[in-house]
Amino acid sequence: MNKKFDHISFLSDYGTTDEFVGIVKCVVADIAPHVNVIDITHDIAPFDVRAGSLALARAISYVPKGVIMAIVDPGVGTARRAVAVSVSGGDGILIGPDNGLLATGVALAGGGEAAFELNKPEYHLAAPGTTFAGRDIFASVAAHLCNGVPLSEVGTEIDVASILPGIVPVPREEHGKMLAEVTWVDHFGNCQLNVGPDEIAHMGTPVRVTIGSLTAATAGQQPVVRSVPIVRNFSEIGAGLGLVVDSFGMLALCIDRGSAAQQLDLGTTELVVIEPDPQAGQGIATAVQIGSKQTPGSPGA
Amino acid sequence: MNKKFDHISFLSDYGTTDEFVGIVKCVVADIAPHVNVIDITHDIAPFDVRAGSLALARAISYVPKGVIMAIVDPGVGTARRAVAVSVSGGDGILIGPDNGLLATGVALAGGGEAAFELNKPEYHLAAPGTTFAGRDIFASVAAHLCNGVPLSEVGTEIDVASILPGIVPVPREEHGKMLAEVTWVDHFGNCQLNVGPDEIAHMGTPVRVTIGSLTAATAGQQPVVRSVPIVRNFSEIGAGLGLVVDSFGMLALCIDRGSAAQQLDLGTTELVVIEPDPQAGQGIATAVQIGSKQTPGSPGA
Amino acid sequence: MNKKFDHISFLSDYGTTDEFVGIVKCVVADIAPHVNVIDITHDIAPFDVRAGSLALARAISYVPKGVIMAIVDPGVGTARRAVAVSVSGGDGILIGPDNGLLATGVALAGGGEAAFELNKPEYHLAAPGTTFAGRDIFASVAAHLCNGVPLSEVGTEIDVASILPGIVPVPREEHGKMLAEVTWVDHFGNCQLNVGPDEIAHMGTPVRVTIGSLTAATAGQQPVVRSVPIVRNFSEIGAGLGLVVDSFGMLALCIDRGSAAQQLDLGTTELVVIEPDPQAGQGIATAVQIGSKQTPGSPGA
Repeated sequence: MNKKFDHISFLSDYGTTDEFVGIVKCVVADIAPHVNVIDITHDIAPFDVRAGSLALARAISYVPKGVIMAIVDPGVGTARRAVAVSVSGGDGILIGPDNGLLATGVALAGGGEAAFELNKPEYHLAAPGTTFAGRDIFASVAAHLCNGVPLSEVGTEIDVASILPGIVPVPREEHGKMLAEVTWVDHFGNCQLNVGPDEIAHMGTPVRVTIGSLTAATAGQQPVVRSVPIVRNFSEIGAGLGLVVDSFGMLALCIDRGSAAQQLDLGTTELVVIEPDPQAGQGIATAVQIGSKQTPGSPGA
Repeated sequence: MNKKFDHISFLSDYGTTDEFVGIVKCVVADIAPHVNVIDITHDIAPFDVRAGSLALARAISYVPKGVIMAIVDPGVGTARRAVAVSVSGGDGILIGPDNGLLATGVALAGGGEAAFELNKPEYHLAAPGTTFAGRDIFASVAAHLCNGVPLSEVGTEIDVASILPGIVPVPREEHGKMLAEVTWVDHFGNCQLNVGPDEIAHMGTPVRVTIGSLTAATAGQQPVVRSVPIVRNFSEIGAGLGLVVDSFGMLALCIDRGSAAQQLDLGTTELVVIEPDPQAGQGIATAVQIGSKQTPGSPGA
Repeated sequence: MNKKFDHISFLSDYGTTDEFVGIVKCVVADIAPHVNVIDITHDIAPFDVRAGSLALARAISYVPKGVIMAIVDPGVGTARRAVAVSVSGGDGILIGPDNGLLATGVALAGGGEAAFELNKPEYHLAAPGTTFAGRDIFASVAAHLCNGVPLSEVGTEIDVASILPGIVPVPREEHGKMLAEVTWVDHFGNCQLNVGPDEIAHMGTPVRVTIGSLTAATAGQQPVVRSVPIVRNFSEIGAGLGLVVDSFGMLALCIDRGSAAQQLDLGTTELVVIEPDPQAGQGIATAVQIGSKQTPGSPGA
């Protein structure tokens, strides 16, 4: 007998203003009434496979045993494959479109052990249109998997290595500077970077953070340059900006009880340069400066 | 013994910024702890009975066995009746205000078999005010129904035919043109029409779509006229606008990876005229044209 | 043997655009798969402990037996205590940060019977950062409590009286006028006041309502003054403004099928003065007047 699951963890760009998510849950309840569907989030920006992939990556180590259903699917109804990938000795099955959304999550779950293309229509719902695979394919298959139907029944095995890789933004170091990227702006306006504290530990604290230096230079605008402490919680930031070790172990640009994204007008994929702060040793570590040039001893306005 | 249910499918205009939906679920959990409440959506525009009715109609064929609770209730606390209607041999019970919200859903579920006015206070919560029937009447009754309390216990039987009919927007054909209406703008900006592909199959593809022709004429503005292909998924649209056979079998004005509603400034209840495209046979089927007049051979800007 | 719980009622300022709430539910499902997490709301304004406290107070008498988890936690990761307070003979356990969020809810549930600081790391998740106590402390502890782990295992007992009190906005009467405050603006734009109908019953109906009188005087602006009926539902308001006895037994400034907050540009914490309407006996009770001065017989524009 096959494993039965009690949980489907569900992430999408469906939003909650329409009945899309509700109908997906109805389909699951109809086929597998015992299943608890956990909403990871449905507010991934429409069609933003990258953002969905990163949210899945942040959540994957916390999802319970069961199916993880991720749907950000601009190519719905086309030749892009609908797939299922098993991980962790079969304790987890990720299902979704094969468009780069799943790969990072699969990798963080220890790597894919087997993959299947969900091409068995007997496990799908008959549908008047092809645009709602979440309802007609993924929810239906996920529910059958929770009922104990084996993966080999719901699809044809494919090479795990054929799953489309995700785009993982990797920081790079150049001339002692860390070129990082904003990977996520959360509800509070905290801006997560693709850099962990260990990667810049040698720079000490505070560090100098430059935002907009590359593109702004082209546009003839002044970049924002600040001396920023690396801290463990929001209150330690004090006034101004801080680099907080966030709950996923990454550094995030934050303001205490405020939105860093709003104050800095900062969004995902934007470049953030981190380097040692030349003034850090001079006892003005917490000074906040704006301006492209910092003359020691003359902190900016 | 009566049927017991495990699921309440719940649709409302309560939004999720307040605790309304949460309190409704608390009431259900308190009375019938085994029940799984499925949120269809709670973002029906406030007081918009018509939009709630249409969302219910789209969802009804997917809800699991159990109670379907629909609440868009501008007349809460007045003489409007709170009702329950059984469908599908008792496998489904729709409950909500009798204001036109339920009728279309009831009809699509095969028609009402019995109807009751929910006027037995012993199955309601005592409440300090009359403005939250979702908590004090509907949630409480729904939970008791899930516990196996028969419909005849929670209300007085009324004539099924007395349930207030919903407003179903019907398209009409005039002089070979289909006068359609936008029934729903979804989260992605797709604009569903009240026309299915069979109704305009004789026009071929592409068709000519005119938006704003009637009201704009009065206002002296140019209507938007486009040649639009009828397709099966978003990617087939290519650049420009497409009429996609959507997941409910209706035609929807869509853009691939973009919002048709935003680009066309189009909202629900607006008129869309569809007619054969006179240029379709001339090999310029995919030309996108804007302007009220189309001279063959001189496609607009 | 200890009590086991099936429900966690969950309120926060996490929003639902990110995966915060989803991950909290994943943690619960992993530790206590049988538990049903009920979302009270997650749209408390970021860091707004007062608003969270009031929403909890409105919900507390409806939550089912189990854990009530409330998280609005600007001081996360600092010395502020994470606490649990048992109420109602142990049928309810409130957990959250000790920052004033819980106290009003505890009081309305009959008062705290025992309190514990959640300082036993063996019941927390190991985490790379300290900023997500909802995941690493509260969800984990809540799930263990639902599994029957006693409160005394998950923390050190503290004095119930040491729980930080909440800020309860109390109205005050001055020279026959009731000085009230907007405590909550809901999704529909209804503006709840911190005054119940009994407190102004002696004024009769309609009453005179003045908005903006104190601050506007300073700014040289005209306050808004209206004659407002006290009614039981929205339809009874008719045109204009009404004071509706809302579903929590408080008075709320409302418009029938419209947003009072929007029309009056009114928000939480704003002052509303209620006094007897000198014109009420003169048979023009439903006149709506705008202007700071009302001469009997000359209703304003």
